[in-house]
Amino acid sequence: MSVPSRYDREEREVEFARALAFSDGVFAFAITLLVTTIDVPDLGDDPTEQAVVDALVDRLGSFGTFFLSFAVIGLLWINHHRLLARVRGLTMTAMWLNLLALAFVVLLPFSTELLGRYGDEPGAVAVYALNLAICAASYTLLWGYCARNDLLVEPLTRRQLRQELVIRAWITVGFLASIPIAFLVDTGVAELSWLATSLTQRWLIARWLPDDEP
Amino acid sequence: MSVPSRYDREEREVEFARALAFSDGVFAFAITLLVTTIDVPDLGDDPTEQAVVDALVDRLGSFGTFFLSFAVIGLLWINHHRLLARVRGLTMTAMWLNLLALAFVVLLPFSTELLGRYGDEPGAVAVYALNLAICAASYTLLWGYCARNDLLVEPLTRRQLRQELVIRAWITVGFLASIPIAFLVDTGVAELSWLATSLTQRWLIARWLPDDEP
Amino acid sequence: MSVPSRYDREEREVEFARALAFSDGVFAFAITLLVTTIDVPDLGDDPTEQAVVDALVDRLGSFGTFFLSFAVIGLLWINHHRLLARVRGLTMTAMWLNLLALAFVVLLPFSTELLGRYGDEPGAVAVYALNLAICAASYTLLWGYCARNDLLVEPLTRRQLRQELVIRAWITVGFLASIPIAFLVDTGVAELSWLATSLTQRWLIARWLPDDEP
Amino acid sequence: MSVPSRYDREEREVEFARALAFSDGVFAFAITLLVTTIDVPDLGDDPTEQAVVDALVDRLGSFGTFFLSFAVIGLLWINHHRLLARVRGLTMTAMWLNLLALAFVVLLPFSTELLGRYGDEPGAVAVYALNLAICAASYTLLWGYCARNDLLVEPLTRRQLRQELVIRAWITVGFLASIPIAFLVDTGVAELSWLATSLTQRWLIARWLPDDEP
Repeated sequence: MSVPSRYDREEREVEFARALAFSDGVFAFAITLLVTTIDVPDLGDDPTEQAVVDALVDRLGSFGTFFLSFAVIGLLWINHHRLLARVRGLTMTAMWLNLLALAFVVLLPFSTELLGRYGDEPGAVAVYALNLAICAASYTLLWGYCARNDLLVEPLTRRQLRQELVIRAWITVGFLASIPIAFLVDTGVAELSWLATSLTQRWLIARWLPDDEP
Repeated sequence: MSVPSRYDREEREVEFARALAFSDGVFAFAITLLVTTIDVPDLGDDPTEQAVVDALVDRLGSFGTFFLSFAVIGLLWINHHRLLARVRGLTMTAMWLNLLALAFVVLLPFSTELLGRYGDEPGAVAVYALNLAICAASYTLLWGYCARNDLLVEPLTRRQLRQELVIRAWITVGFLASIPIAFLVDTGVAELSWLATSLTQRWLIARWLPDDEP
Repeated sequence: MSVPSRYDREEREVEFARALAFSDGVFAFAITLLVTTIDVPDLGDDPTEQAVVDALVDRLGSFGTFFLSFAVIGLLWINHHRLLARVRGLTMTAMWLNLLALAFVVLLPFSTELLGRYGDEPGAVAVYALNLAICAASYTLLWGYCARNDLLVEPLTRRQLRQELVIRAWITVGFLASIPIAFLVDTGVAELSWLATSLTQRWLIARWLPDDEP
Repeated sequence: MSVPSRYDREEREVEFARALAFSDGVFAFAITLLVTTIDVPDLGDDPTEQAVVDALVDRLGSFGTFFLSFAVIGLLWINHHRLLARVRGLTMTAMWLNLLALAFVVLLPFSTELLGRYGDEPGAVAVYALNLAICAASYTLLWGYCARNDLLVEPLTRRQLRQELVIRAWITVGFLASIPIAFLVDTGVAELSWLATSLTQRWLIARWLPDDEP
């Protein structure tokens, strides 16, 4: 317990690497677990050809949610990757903020299965939106903590800080806003608003951080 | 978000290594998850000796599909391994093509369980064939992207490019062609055509890339 | 089998790294597997809006246990991390003590699901407390073995040894003590005693090891 | 596909490391998956205290098999670790032999669950014994291949080769021999013979390879 409280990338490379390896393991497992959200049909010993095809067509929604969530966890992993690449060390607090983000990554297979089964239900849409909103908020917290505590490799100007904060918080705000839409308006509109949130974030990135690859 | 958009193997070794570690994690979990495609028989509290043996014999098909898919994912992992060993850096686009390939690796336990249960059904055979065809196509895309964008360690001649393209696309074409065979002719013939596709690919490799280990 | 029996961090870096990577993998999968302790409701083809919300409210207990156990495994991972960071090599005995600790980490998703379903039952509370008590005891054993066999990077004074032993054993004693409380008094009191155990441990750390980050 | 066919530890460190990382991932996941072999009791909404305790007592057999298999996979991992630490490079054939061994590691959670449920049934005992026998045989094949193809860091004398072959093959022979015992004599005797096989192997190691740690 006499370990220094800060795990600097250079001085304690092994510790920093372990935090990354653990995170990568969690992402890899969560993304693989998505396959269990598509249930294999149970059609008895000798189903007709049509029954098998029908059962697969019934699962088109689950396949859709699988690919959506695969892309979402993939994107979260790439963003985690890019965020940590800019960090030069992790304190114990940063470790816990990272774990907080991972907790909501790990919940995604649950939210995905719920959405795959009950995509028309406001409750399921709300759970999915809340899950992603909190996940994005955790990333924002982790990034903000690192920026404030001088843990970034290249410190940001005040202006860059503000711009990146808006870009990051945008996802949380947009997904939270989709929850009342799901209950009061329509679940389809709520799901479209997710797309709108993502596209406007892309536009903000293109405008403010033009060096960043789309 | 000011991270450079290209993750060069040398300059940003950690980032490249993380992409490999994540991919290896996904392959390792997907291959391990195959064991869940064999369901443990539920025979009540005190089954007869014969009942246990019968239940195991009933599962021979599932064991067969388990070993087939273990070999398939193993081969996909080795090919991923060999492909990435020739790459000197990954751009964001290459990352996404890699994720696309991984998505169809992750789907294999589902397709495997389906094929294990309904191996005589054209629908199940078609899902398995489609899964592998798209997976092979994603590899071809990733390889082609890296070759075209000068991301290979040793650039290829035009002739090598064409030969490797044929070898890679061969799997996709062969597995897609097996789908109408499964529906119109016979599922057994379709499964034999998979073997024929693999063997002719081996023959093409032996002829065009004789240095490559069988 | 002529491999030397001690895996020194410096001399055989790869072996030490593999032991860490394996442990990290186990932690990452165990923490991700927690998501499977929340079952996705099965509400038929077309549930009412209220039914979905009710099913989610029913699962609040499971969500609570999920986050509790996520924090617990996260803490165990951080402690594993900090413990191993102080070790300069692993003998075969240390490897087995590490595996013993991991076995009880791996059991946590089971204990978690049990507690999530039957949080009011002394049996479920006892299993969870026993699981954590043995897990903490395994860490204490691993640490004690490394300290006694001169495997720590910075050897401890007799006084530091005694203090750290008390701090580590405290968790085991406290969680074991909560088991009779659960059966004879009340499960809620037993769960509160876990909090008390953790807080007094924090206080001991703050008093005896003030350099240690909270 | 123009990659050289041999992955030398020194020359192509990344490739060798990826093969280890993939194997470690499979071991870590398979050992963690063991927890799913203990099913969480489903006792309705408000079970009696006794019902919970009874359900846990009913699962003592499953817990026993869990710990047995945890130790078995742990031992297989340590042996994999020690075997690969003596190897200086992997050819494509060695990769496939490694995958063969991993396939039977991955099957262990299935065999474990079967044995946990039907420990008195010869069929279940036979599946477990066969699984371990083939797993040990795959290790022997991998080791023999590396020894014969000069892939070991320290080449063995003819005498050492013969001794290690006997030690390794002993497990396969002993576990195969337990299968007729299970069917013709008694499953308890078969399980005791596994212990006898392990202890005599230990004795052989102590006699022939005294430098090797117990």
